[in-house]
Amino acid sequence: MNIKEYLKRQAELINEKIKEYIPSGVPEKLFDAMAYSLTAGGKRIRPVLILESARAVGKEDIDDILDIAVASEFIHTYSLIHDDLPAMDDDDLRRGKPTCHKVYGEAIAILAGDGLQSYAFELISKNGSISPEKLIKVINILAHGTGIYGMVGGQAADILHEKENSFDDINFIHTHKTAKFIQSCCQIGAVLSDATCREEEALKNYGLYIGLAFQIWDDILDEIGDEKKLGKKTKKDREKNKLTYPSIYGIEKSKKIAKEYVEKAVNEIKILKNPELLQGLANYIISREV
Amino acid sequence: MNIKEYLKRQAELINEKIKEYIPSGVPEKLFDAMAYSLTAGGKRIRPVLILESARAVGKEDIDDILDIAVASEFIHTYSLIHDDLPAMDDDDLRRGKPTCHKVYGEAIAILAGDGLQSYAFELISKNGSISPEKLIKVINILAHGTGIYGMVGGQAADILHEKENSFDDINFIHTHKTAKFIQSCCQIGAVLSDATCREEEALKNYGLYIGLAFQIWDDILDEIGDEKKLGKKTKKDREKNKLTYPSIYGIEKSKKIAKEYVEKAVNEIKILKNPELLQGLANYIISREV
Repeated sequence: MNIKEYLKRQAELINEKIKEYIPSGVPEKLFDAMAYSLTAGGKRIRPVLILESARAVGKEDIDDILDIAVASEFIHTYSLIHDDLPAMDDDDLRRGKPTCHKVYGEAIAILAGDGLQSYAFELISKNGSISPEKLIKVINILAHGTGIYGMVGGQAADILHEKENSFDDINFIHTHKTAKFIQSCCQIGAVLSDATCREEEALKNYGLYIGLAFQIWDDILDEIGDEKKLGKKTKKDREKNKLTYPSIYGIEKSKKIAKEYVEKAVNEIKILKNPELLQGLANYIISREV
Repeated sequence: MNIKEYLKRQAELINEKIKEYIPSGVPEKLFDAMAYSLTAGGKRIRPVLILESARAVGKEDIDDILDIAVASEFIHTYSLIHDDLPAMDDDDLRRGKPTCHKVYGEAIAILAGDGLQSYAFELISKNGSISPEKLIKVINILAHGTGIYGMVGGQAADILHEKENSFDDINFIHTHKTAKFIQSCCQIGAVLSDATCREEEALKNYGLYIGLAFQIWDDILDEIGDEKKLGKKTKKDREKNKLTYPSIYGIEKSKKIAKEYVEKAVNEIKILKNPELLQGLANYIISREV
């Protein structure tokens, strides 16, 4: 089975689990908005990385950490809903469908995002199988990687550059906006699999490198990708005066840098018991169709 | 010392601790926006309730839970920043000062709120003194009480009523928007103080009752309070067609209901070792000046 096929199957597993964990309640519109965005598709890369990182270190049974994997997608979905808001990236389409605020209005979209964030932490705190020591570590890593010192900080830097030209470090933006969250997922997999310090460090480095490659490749797709295949408008970054790798280095040099990150990622995890799938996943990132 | 004086001193202690725990970093504007809203004043009722609930059960040294108390104010501040946004309550003033989005723009205000939420959970996960078992319980209680089954759900119901007249249960709104978070703080104090089941239950009921009294009194203040003393516009609820106790029951009946809740709260915690301060606090809620 090739890696693309494997990732598709893993995404299907995650999709099933997401459906199991989608909360229901009142007011219905709030819960509908969350469910709408949670089931709008996506590669489910973050939950897959949690599961595959745990497996790479040797964890065999992943049933007891599926809720934690799902929680990472709740956080990712909250960030997409908020990023799409008019005051932020102002996007009408996401994965070929109208964005959350287009369907449910801005107020409910803001609250759906807020609620998905708190529910992600609630889900992890309810796990019950994993020890509290590990769950606290997982929460710490996830909150740190997706908060002000990770994703939220990177998103702020990205917006500040776009709106005021006041933040000019492309590496800061990519590292914080994208790579730190992806890195967190790999580290969480390590923690949940009783990794040694060296294994955890290798997975952290792997996560950082593929996170950077992932964002560079996304910038390339935005610049030269096919709108229909991607399910979203392209050339948005250019319109918005965003800092991107292609805007600084051009397409070919950007591709080369992304490939170098992937090579470093692949090397980092050679020491793990079962690195093959994560290595395939790293290579897949820079093979996504343009 | 009267209760008002005591609460003022406790708020000063919390203010000092908030300053200690305010995060710093880049992009500066994001961190400035969080600090701006965190230091904009307020009664600090939620952290005080965590500390006083722990003391009421018998905890003497509260130094090891001050960060958890501060984290509750981070969550409260995130909710205020998001509630004030144009797409939500659209408020320009909060405690006599321009609201976060008025000073830093909407995008940074959204991200400051998101970041305060994740940082609250990060802070708790970093505690280090309290056992992981208890910290996981604290996170579960806080995420539940402030999320889709608590504050966020109540805020959505409130907004949906205002915008579409589609959600008409005042008790649902008050319980979820305000009381569940306050209840969580009392329960967190109990958990951090090794309360018995009966003590924890008493504090949960106390929290629910004072939370409801608090929101009813807030509605009364909005209707007949003095703008200068309150530091915000009054009669906003009426303008916005919000569901409030005064709009349904009138002022006098609303005051009576609030007083009954306070009496119930005071009775609930008679079984605790040191209930006096919490009882005083309950009575203070319905003595706030109109």
